[in-house]
Amino acid sequence: MIGKDSRHVKEAVKLKQKKYRGLQNKYIIEGIRFIEEGIKSSKVHYILYSSKLFKTSGYERILNESCPAFEVSDDIISILADTENPQGAVAVAEKNLYTLNDIKNKFIVVLDEIQDPGNMGTIIRTADAAGAGGLIVIKGSADVYSSKALRATMGSIFHIPIVFYDNFKEASFELKNNDYRLYSTSPEAEKYLYDCNFKDNTAIVIGNEARGMSKDDIELCHEKIKIPMIGKAESLNAAVACSVIIYEVVRQRLTT
Amino acid sequence: MIGKDSRHVKEAVKLKQKKYRGLQNKYIIEGIRFIEEGIKSSKVHYILYSSKLFKTSGYERILNESCPAFEVSDDIISILADTENPQGAVAVAEKNLYTLNDIKNKFIVVLDEIQDPGNMGTIIRTADAAGAGGLIVIKGSADVYSSKALRATMGSIFHIPIVFYDNFKEASFELKNNDYRLYSTSPEAEKYLYDCNFKDNTAIVIGNEARGMSKDDIELCHEKIKIPMIGKAESLNAAVACSVIIYEVVRQRLTT
Repeated sequence: MIGKDSRHVKEAVKLKQKKYRGLQNKYIIEGIRFIEEGIKSSKVHYILYSSKLFKTSGYERILNESCPAFEVSDDIISILADTENPQGAVAVAEKNLYTLNDIKNKFIVVLDEIQDPGNMGTIIRTADAAGAGGLIVIKGSADVYSSKALRATMGSIFHIPIVFYDNFKEASFELKNNDYRLYSTSPEAEKYLYDCNFKDNTAIVIGNEARGMSKDDIELCHEKIKIPMIGKAESLNAAVACSVIIYEVVRQRLTT
Repeated sequence: MIGKDSRHVKEAVKLKQKKYRGLQNKYIIEGIRFIEEGIKSSKVHYILYSSKLFKTSGYERILNESCPAFEVSDDIISILADTENPQGAVAVAEKNLYTLNDIKNKFIVVLDEIQDPGNMGTIIRTADAAGAGGLIVIKGSADVYSSKALRATMGSIFHIPIVFYDNFKEASFELKNNDYRLYSTSPEAEKYLYDCNFKDNTAIVIGNEARGMSKDDIELCHEKIKIPMIGKAESLNAAVACSVIIYEVVRQRLTT
């Protein structure tokens, strides 16, 4: 068993903080299913587990010698895990660093200062399910690698490339250079999403939950689109709105 | 100022429990915006507020004599409110009891044992935004009137009729008697949602997040539909899946 002063535990504790995740390009994942998916993607450096793990069915799927594993106390797992009843295992995984060239299917979702980690994770999950080519995350958005965002991805973090940009201007410039058509989403748009042609290279941009996209960022896009609001609700949940648009792209590309 | 032994505070404390919400057909709402919407719908019996409320802009919109209001201590507000930083006001509201006949637009979303109150509230919000006629909630689902579900509705609880049934069989029987076409949602379905005609009377049924709909309940529906899963994600978030289908109904009904 290794203790709290061991190099691995110390590193894992630091990775609870966004700052260290940024410096080290590593992050923490927890639970058998997540770690198993991470190992499949060859992204896991090592596992920390406590005896509690053996009470959970399926533990042998992660303790199979394909990845270094160190036993620690239950207390250390409680410190490292974010869930109330951790399964007794966390792992340190490495971030994948992608560029726009890694995105093969020309359908990208751009998150422009999405704040809620749950929304962010849910959008990554939907983009994966819909077969989008990848996501772009603009600085100022929630941390993709926080435990809450990761949990909401349900493992899709390992399935789909995510590219990071410091500002939307730079991202929009590169997208345009690669022949993407950029769609901003705003309740003030005049055009419904159903009236666009998403069969060409498509980048859908989703803004902040409260403020929406900035005027400057909207101006950098080719078209403004909106979702019909027929009842009395003022808005949709951001992950829902994004998912409705993502699946309109899917619908158009499935039908000829 | 009224104290913790007053009739109103005692009633409000009891309404924190699902059991009493069921017995009394009342529930608690919190925050200025929610209470304002509730007053507009003439559903608020009384407001309980503490001096803290006067620090929040817009408080005059709810303390305007159209609804009885009683001052209580900050401590009582903390007990009654669910949010970490309550705005200093909660209110006791009355449930609206609807039947299928109250649903005018023949497009209904049926929640068949949805467990997560956040998903439930988000679906109610999307159904409202999409102009659906109403929702049906089958016993065994999360409580629509819990604070978490209410918060996720963002006020849509006051905008759209919700009808409650003890079991899906009974609901399906009445829906069929009213010429609804029932669509179950299941990853095992063969038909994509895009291949259905949702212009006629439509009831979309969403099952439990983990188990999906029961086989018996699926059998009671006319058609099984699914959403394309193109990437590696195994499933979509339940509120997302439901919203994608809801907006396919909207799309079909907007286009001729």
